[in-house]
Amino acid sequence: MESFRKIAIIGLGLIGSSIAHAARRGGLAKEIAGHDADPDVLDRAGRIGFCDSLHADSGDAVDDAELVILCAPVGAYKTIAEAIVGHLGKGAILSDVGSVKSAVIRDVGPFVPPDVHFIPAHPIAGTEFSGPEAGFASLFDGRWAILTPAPGSDDAAVARLKAFWQGLGSQVDVMDAAHHDLVLAITSHLPHLIAYNIVGTAHDLEQVTEGEVIKYSASGFRDFTRIAASDPTMWRDVFLNNREAVLEVLGRFNEDLSLLQRAVRNGDGQTLFDLFTRTRAIRRAIVDIGQDTSAPNFGRKS
Amino acid sequence: MESFRKIAIIGLGLIGSSIAHAARRGGLAKEIAGHDADPDVLDRAGRIGFCDSLHADSGDAVDDAELVILCAPVGAYKTIAEAIVGHLGKGAILSDVGSVKSAVIRDVGPFVPPDVHFIPAHPIAGTEFSGPEAGFASLFDGRWAILTPAPGSDDAAVARLKAFWQGLGSQVDVMDAAHHDLVLAITSHLPHLIAYNIVGTAHDLEQVTEGEVIKYSASGFRDFTRIAASDPTMWRDVFLNNREAVLEVLGRFNEDLSLLQRAVRNGDGQTLFDLFTRTRAIRRAIVDIGQDTSAPNFGRKS
Repeated sequence: MESFRKIAIIGLGLIGSSIAHAARRGGLAKEIAGHDADPDVLDRAGRIGFCDSLHADSGDAVDDAELVILCAPVGAYKTIAEAIVGHLGKGAILSDVGSVKSAVIRDVGPFVPPDVHFIPAHPIAGTEFSGPEAGFASLFDGRWAILTPAPGSDDAAVARLKAFWQGLGSQVDVMDAAHHDLVLAITSHLPHLIAYNIVGTAHDLEQVTEGEVIKYSASGFRDFTRIAASDPTMWRDVFLNNREAVLEVLGRFNEDLSLLQRAVRNGDGQTLFDLFTRTRAIRRAIVDIGQDTSAPNFGRKS
Repeated sequence: MESFRKIAIIGLGLIGSSIAHAARRGGLAKEIAGHDADPDVLDRAGRIGFCDSLHADSGDAVDDAELVILCAPVGAYKTIAEAIVGHLGKGAILSDVGSVKSAVIRDVGPFVPPDVHFIPAHPIAGTEFSGPEAGFASLFDGRWAILTPAPGSDDAAVARLKAFWQGLGSQVDVMDAAHHDLVLAITSHLPHLIAYNIVGTAHDLEQVTEGEVIKYSASGFRDFTRIAASDPTMWRDVFLNNREAVLEVLGRFNEDLSLLQRAVRNGDGQTLFDLFTRTRAIRRAIVDIGQDTSAPNFGRKS
């Protein structure tokens, strides 16, 4: 792909810093400008050095950029959009990496000038760590990125953003925002909500100490603690901004759990066995398409 | 520790085969005899060669053994106990590795002759794989094993079994069976039930295809599929045999989830943020005591 003359990354946490690292690796931009609202994050980003220029003012970072990517928690988008909109040049692409897309269009869309291409995006990648030190160039390799352009978006701009994400290492899909939000509600938001909840339940049980939960966590529990260690601000904003889809899949989860609870209560071994057999196939399919490792216990070393 | 003259492993899947590998590594037994009810498993175990002798008849494997370890799904214990009880020598230790302990005592206890030391045990270790090929010598290294001897058990026999598990690589705790079952209900059984359930829910949603769930699984879902790929027979038996404790912690989980659901519905960001912050500390504690890796994404390679 033709590299961008200048890209601006607004928010320099795990995802923003990883985009900078991967864009450099791929030679996707002649200049990478960065902004973060937190002076401490800006300072740490400067020491790591993954941006060519750093700016305390978001507008300064955006000036003359051909591609601007919002990488902050989605609850901050509206404020950011108001601050940068006057700095967006004609023909610039404005995108983001938020885990919800309908709310982003709702919050940012009204501020976008008609001569700017607004193309929301969401890379399906991450770790449980946060901050500029957490980023690395290979985060997006082999993962999917989803673009949710509005109907009538400029084909050339969408193609250019698609090529950018491919240059970062991703495979790219395009879908509408509402479908994205439902898909992610089941593949990401519900798993996080459940993980946060079970870790909270374990913490609050009176009959079992927290020390016991921690010591014996290798029997299953520890797997849930990884995603329950994800960034609290980002995840608060996800649940505040994808309410309907999350409540819908949570309703289905609860219905299914009630049936499973009854099977346990009634000693209905056949129902349990049938479910436990079906679920194995999905794991196999995920490993087969390269979206997880086949190594036992994720190949972890301890 | 003084090595056992002969140990017998009844059931040659992931745990049974790992015990054999680790016992050899540690020089813990002069002879390892193995039995499995499935002739195919017996055949495969023979080709791998982790036992000194293999027996289609469980009684033959048990003859003259100083230590007998049941490594079959707990639903099969009663049948096994009936078959081997006449072959247990005076002073032998009879133990197991089942994930529930009260039910094991209920099913096996009545068959145990008075001159045999019955000391149930449970290693907190495993992977999502099953069968004799899945075992490896380091499975128990650094993990915990819990012994649940009845009050009045022979101290020397308990000490000897404890030394055996330490020789396999484990740290060892002793507690009563009922407490074990409650601790494991929260650290292991509930996580598995929830993981099985969410994978089932994702599979059954009409609006999101299974292909989408699989493609975008790296956003959280894939973590749950690992434990939802665990052995169906073993896990059916766990839920049939730890019903009360599982229903108790599931009730607590459901209460907590209702509050979380209401917080999402009401847009109560503070409640969400507070929970998501609390849960981070438990992850840190698990990593700090060496029960999980600190590497992002469990250090997985894809």
